[in-house]
Amino acid sequence: MAGTDTSIKIELQPSPAVILCEPQLGENIGTAARAMANFGLWDLRLVRPRDGWPNEKAVAAASRADHVIERVRVFETLEDAIADLTLVLATTARPRDMQKEVIGPDEAAQRMAAQVAGGRCVGLLFGREKWGLLNEEVALADTIVTLPVEPAFASLNIAQAVLLMAYEWRRHSASGTALPFSGVMAEVAPREELVGLFGHLESTLDASGFFTAPDKRPTVINNLRTMLERGKFTSQEIRTLRGVISSIDRRHERPNPNRQKPAAKSD
Amino acid sequence: MAGTDTSIKIELQPSPAVILCEPQLGENIGTAARAMANFGLWDLRLVRPRDGWPNEKAVAAASRADHVIERVRVFETLEDAIADLTLVLATTARPRDMQKEVIGPDEAAQRMAAQVAGGRCVGLLFGREKWGLLNEEVALADTIVTLPVEPAFASLNIAQAVLLMAYEWRRHSASGTALPFSGVMAEVAPREELVGLFGHLESTLDASGFFTAPDKRPTVINNLRTMLERGKFTSQEIRTLRGVISSIDRRHERPNPNRQKPAAKSD
Repeated sequence: MAGTDTSIKIELQPSPAVILCEPQLGENIGTAARAMANFGLWDLRLVRPRDGWPNEKAVAAASRADHVIERVRVFETLEDAIADLTLVLATTARPRDMQKEVIGPDEAAQRMAAQVAGGRCVGLLFGREKWGLLNEEVALADTIVTLPVEPAFASLNIAQAVLLMAYEWRRHSASGTALPFSGVMAEVAPREELVGLFGHLESTLDASGFFTAPDKRPTVINNLRTMLERGKFTSQEIRTLRGVISSIDRRHERPNPNRQKPAAKSD
Repeated sequence: MAGTDTSIKIELQPSPAVILCEPQLGENIGTAARAMANFGLWDLRLVRPRDGWPNEKAVAAASRADHVIERVRVFETLEDAIADLTLVLATTARPRDMQKEVIGPDEAAQRMAAQVAGGRCVGLLFGREKWGLLNEEVALADTIVTLPVEPAFASLNIAQAVLLMAYEWRRHSASGTALPFSGVMAEVAPREELVGLFGHLESTLDASGFFTAPDKRPTVINNLRTMLERGKFTSQEIRTLRGVISSIDRRHERPNPNRQKPAAKSD
């Protein structure tokens, strides 16, 4: 469908970031950029693109979505890529054995619109072409988004998945039906603070010998992160939890007048 | 996004026909077929495809949407292609100087769903790559459908336009109400287990000297309980968290060959 009106200047509105995890082909980065531009998205972030960046094939495939391509940012880790976001949605076409909510694109767009209307930053994660997102990447997200595809023919390429999510975003944001954000709940902490909590807890658990079966460590860590993520902690709450971890961890290192011996076992 | 479940047999449900008017590239026919298959459409009709039919490039680009490709019908005129339809919607990205209603994709899907539920046949027209539908083709349709694209970046390829319309169709038709999988949210633990976790944590924190200001202790405890409650933990998760607390608490009491100083984590 032709129809671009080149007399209209593109205005960048607050909108979700699109984060591609280890994209393999430049063409797919470019077509994803174009799909974003179709529906007014512009913040494209790449985590370890296989062929590096900048990428000529991406530029060619973007079909003049220059305002997206020029703003691409590359990150070494997913944690860095989502550090400033307060709502992170992971797109996946297959179920994960994780205690994490699964929603559809319209619900996802509504939630993103409510956050963005409140001045916060949100993002959508998309996995690599061959096998999507890793479980450890999904564990960093708040919620799983899946598309209502035909189960017997579910394979979508990245640009198509981006297109559908961008379409839903625009449908919900432009229509003015964005939910007004409730003022009761305090702000959820930026993702980097949550990741900081994860790191603090996990290094403490490593030191304490918590992971008795090393091969199960990644699964246990994903489960712990999933649990903690669901709390939607504020910055203050994260500081409190980190204080909790440090306090328990250091109890044998500092004198404390209130400390009691654990109840002595009678024998 | 991977995720096709090849064990599921595709069932062809009554659904809209997709009519491509004079498509130029076989690749676009193929990717349109694939997009249809993603959302359960299967009736693809071609009016005077430039490179004839069958078309090897179309087959390759369809990525195994064989059930669509095998059923393709070719017509000499648009009138023939839409002869059996009672509702025909013309997709276009630019306004036409025509006394014809213009609706969005969700409204279009609702109207199609109502017709199909009544046992009637409906179809969606898509134009040629270079300049879309001719006015005389639009004139044969009931209504114009246009997508809520960014006006300054409105160009969508055919497969993307088909994908979005097929997505809306599925969202509104009966089969679209369910996502292909849902979250595996297990049962939230009975409240006594959560209370047990509170007690375990709080006695450990008492012993570690966490509550430096005794008058603030009740408030801090309420805040901790509020935080933990929001996680909606399962029984298994509560056991894991209690294991975490015990592990950190006891790290100085038991020898552990793997023990290291916690890595200083910046946050």
